[in-house]
Amino acid sequence: MESTALSVGAYLIERLRAFGVDHVFGVPGDYVLSFFKQLEESPIEVINTCDEQGAGFAADAYARIRGMGAVCITYCVGGLKVANTTAQAFAEKSPVVVISGAPGTNERYKNPLLHHKVRDFDTQLKVFEQLTVATAVLDDPQTAFCEIDRVLAAARRYCRPVYIELPRNIVNAIGTTCLPRITIQEKSDPAVLAAALQEAVALINTSRQPVILAGEELHRFGLQSLLATLIEKTNIPVASTILGKSVFAESHPRYLGVYEGAMGREEVREYVESSDCVILLGALLTDMNLGIYTAQLQQKYSIYCATEKLSIGYHTYEEVGLEEFIEGLLKADIVRQSDEPVPHPLQPANFQVVKDRPMTVQRLFQQLNAFLDDDMVVVADPGDALFGGADLFIHGKTRFLAPAYYASLGFAVPAAIGAQAAAPQLRPLVLVGDGAFQMTGIELSTAARFGLNPIVVVLNNQGYGTERPMQDGPFNDVLGWRYSQLPQLLGQGIGFEVHTEDQFAEALQKAHTHTDSFCLIEVHLEPGDCSEALKRLTGSLAERIHSTV
Amino acid sequence: MESTALSVGAYLIERLRAFGVDHVFGVPGDYVLSFFKQLEESPIEVINTCDEQGAGFAADAYARIRGMGAVCITYCVGGLKVANTTAQAFAEKSPVVVISGAPGTNERYKNPLLHHKVRDFDTQLKVFEQLTVATAVLDDPQTAFCEIDRVLAAARRYCRPVYIELPRNIVNAIGTTCLPRITIQEKSDPAVLAAALQEAVALINTSRQPVILAGEELHRFGLQSLLATLIEKTNIPVASTILGKSVFAESHPRYLGVYEGAMGREEVREYVESSDCVILLGALLTDMNLGIYTAQLQQKYSIYCATEKLSIGYHTYEEVGLEEFIEGLLKADIVRQSDEPVPHPLQPANFQVVKDRPMTVQRLFQQLNAFLDDDMVVVADPGDALFGGADLFIHGKTRFLAPAYYASLGFAVPAAIGAQAAAPQLRPLVLVGDGAFQMTGIELSTAARFGLNPIVVVLNNQGYGTERPMQDGPFNDVLGWRYSQLPQLLGQGIGFEVHTEDQFAEALQKAHTHTDSFCLIEVHLEPGDCSEALKRLTGSLAERIHSTV
Repeated sequence: MESTALSVGAYLIERLRAFGVDHVFGVPGDYVLSFFKQLEESPIEVINTCDEQGAGFAADAYARIRGMGAVCITYCVGGLKVANTTAQAFAEKSPVVVISGAPGTNERYKNPLLHHKVRDFDTQLKVFEQLTVATAVLDDPQTAFCEIDRVLAAARRYCRPVYIELPRNIVNAIGTTCLPRITIQEKSDPAVLAAALQEAVALINTSRQPVILAGEELHRFGLQSLLATLIEKTNIPVASTILGKSVFAESHPRYLGVYEGAMGREEVREYVESSDCVILLGALLTDMNLGIYTAQLQQKYSIYCATEKLSIGYHTYEEVGLEEFIEGLLKADIVRQSDEPVPHPLQPANFQVVKDRPMTVQRLFQQLNAFLDDDMVVVADPGDALFGGADLFIHGKTRFLAPAYYASLGFAVPAAIGAQAAAPQLRPLVLVGDGAFQMTGIELSTAARFGLNPIVVVLNNQGYGTERPMQDGPFNDVLGWRYSQLPQLLGQGIGFEVHTEDQFAEALQKAHTHTDSFCLIEVHLEPGDCSEALKRLTGSLAERIHSTV
Repeated sequence: MESTALSVGAYLIERLRAFGVDHVFGVPGDYVLSFFKQLEESPIEVINTCDEQGAGFAADAYARIRGMGAVCITYCVGGLKVANTTAQAFAEKSPVVVISGAPGTNERYKNPLLHHKVRDFDTQLKVFEQLTVATAVLDDPQTAFCEIDRVLAAARRYCRPVYIELPRNIVNAIGTTCLPRITIQEKSDPAVLAAALQEAVALINTSRQPVILAGEELHRFGLQSLLATLIEKTNIPVASTILGKSVFAESHPRYLGVYEGAMGREEVREYVESSDCVILLGALLTDMNLGIYTAQLQQKYSIYCATEKLSIGYHTYEEVGLEEFIEGLLKADIVRQSDEPVPHPLQPANFQVVKDRPMTVQRLFQQLNAFLDDDMVVVADPGDALFGGADLFIHGKTRFLAPAYYASLGFAVPAAIGAQAAAPQLRPLVLVGDGAFQMTGIELSTAARFGLNPIVVVLNNQGYGTERPMQDGPFNDVLGWRYSQLPQLLGQGIGFEVHTEDQFAEALQKAHTHTDSFCLIEVHLEPGDCSEALKRLTGSLAERIHSTV
């Protein structure tokens, strides 16, 4: 007997809220209208984006901050538009719940050609099986609540996207409370854990210069404070991967900066690569994290622990969890490192503006560094916005968002919408190239509509700057928009066009005080200009592109 | 022995050209850069869109006109962005070739975490297996040419999309000429064909009022002139489905108009539904074609022949082809129908503009009808742009493009780019709602860049007008853009803002003479105003939405 009868849609909303979801991003359509109505009448705020792609990126950013995000769209014409954003959430471990409306179960009899259908009624499901860790078609009110519980638990457990398909005749159907889930306590094997810790501690304690390389899983699985405690206790210096950037307080004296092989600051590279004990915690070994394989980490001297793998030197241990391993290190008798200073990112100084000096990429980031404050979250698009952004001095934890592995262009502007919805006390500073801005920058419309106020810096180098050093051609050009005119189209926001450092300084200052709506600052850069990191990266990539079998 | 050594990329380009592809739409990325370079050096023109979605829609429109289209994008971050547009091409039978760059086969050893990878190297392939009729990963130069031949032949044979994945180290590898393909001549079973024709002809010849309902397959499979000959010979009146609109010359005296149940013109409905012999040729029985199942066609008196099915009355015949069936009807002794006039779409008269009269949907389409000329192709987005557009008087064959089954919003603007690239002698007239325009309208940037000059009419009814009668809420609103300001952002084109009939007349006239670039005409409409067809449709849809199990 149920005390209160809940509809399937209402139960889904209740469970999403329990997981911290207060906003849902999406675009309505007839197969999902009833659920949009339920959302609107619930405490959850619906944020309509211009296109479903924008909703997908926004939900990803929201999930990275809140621990879960949701995108709600209609069948196929909406769902398949978020295939790419869901893929990114999968690759970079972001727990996004994809909720798709669908034809009613009562409409599917005899397999009719209903609008929005591709091949069969399960085509969209089959696509999302490739892109998520769990899927559910809520075609039976009897099991719908259990199914919702199952997939939301999977999203949280694996920090990866899940897919829920909601036939429109089920939304308002009353469901059945499910029995408490049989949950399996995942525990490390005590003997294996003890052996691994013993070997790790011995390696650390006999090393000359241990260093920790911190990755994004520490953030995704809520282990940031554990890392901080470990650093306090052992004094071991810590670098982060580019995907993990801001996982550790960058103002901390033991923080080295971002390590990414040849792409990162040279002093960080030297420090990490001269270490005789690199402890990688929660880091994916991606090409980007490894500076496109320019990283020189010696496996013999490495301790690698992530949620799906633990290896020390040349051998691996199975059945050891990341959290328990770090807890074990914390309890172990690790020699405290000396206070001898380590390389540290330069604290941003007052930037000395040179009047009429044309903007350069390098000085743009220096100028931004002096502008960043405690109340900002940086959202960077792939490309030089990300590579240059890697050395920004981030003030708080998880205040730097970027798809630094999957690297889908067009992430940053819609992600800023998700970030600010998730953390209204933070103002997004968006760094985006002109090519990427032309993909999704129009979602500033959504920011304007929902009263958000990101500061968007468009790095205008007249095309796909990342690709030019690899292989140039007219296909790397984009049309020269007058980006600062966008507020005229949208009827909100203010725009700036910047050629020189003093103009940029003035625009930043005005943007700082204009908090009513978004600010867009177009910065003209020389097409050939790019960050040192990008030069090193693309040189390395070019070799691969021109190779044949 | 090969006489001339061709690389895999060069062979693909050669074969695409043989199928009529002179333009490829896409966005480059590092995994596909070498192939973009090959394209640039070939006779094929590359049309870069702002976002991959735009390229996908453009290629779809191009394929509908040329018989094949191609979209070229990078691995996953590009490919998965065209999942939805490919799904539409599948659903509506449009032969789009999706060409995706990919990591080199020499980079895949030990399954490294290369950027843009989702789960495994074949994740994108598995997604496109759901959305295409053939796929090929060109991982071996020895077989690559044969594989290219195989999938391009499948695209043409089934008029549906195919997927080609091109690892970047294979692009410039020399391939091996493949032996002539063993092609199977698909022939109808002569005895079955004869029996079917005998029954069909008997049914037609004993009927009081036969009528042909012509669908999109006649266009896709090149059977339009066969239909025209059949009409000339038999004098049977012909209506088209909404998806097949413009498959038959609308100026022809035997043309009735679009039949779509309760959604179409009442006189067409009455004529078709009072027929005692409806001959459906190449028409998909979709909900949209059937006026959301308001169509009253009696199976007992129907002859239904499409590429995948033939049924007469209550039984079906197998192994009969659409083309041979129509050829059979042509050769058969069918009684010629009388010349008694049939309902015919109203020829556009001179539209009498009333000064200061606010625009309405109904009169907007009347005004457009008088404006349309022989050198235009109408491209309509789903929604009232499509429903109202159904009764436009189209001057030429295949001069009306719309996704009238899959119905993905945002098709029209990028499709106009594909349409004009495919048929430069035609000027696109784009009909698009404000909601759809906010999804992809920014692709006018691409039109501007490549010297195209569509006339875009934005039907601004302040949101998703199709959905309001079904279930309204703030989620159906969109931000009120100043659409006519878009040319200022792009630095090209001209914009008009229209409230009244005389303003619209003036804007159309100026657009007619301004052929240098695109023209955007924003038409303000009352939010509650919509076409009669839409009112009837949404009333029918609302019943379904509110139904529960």
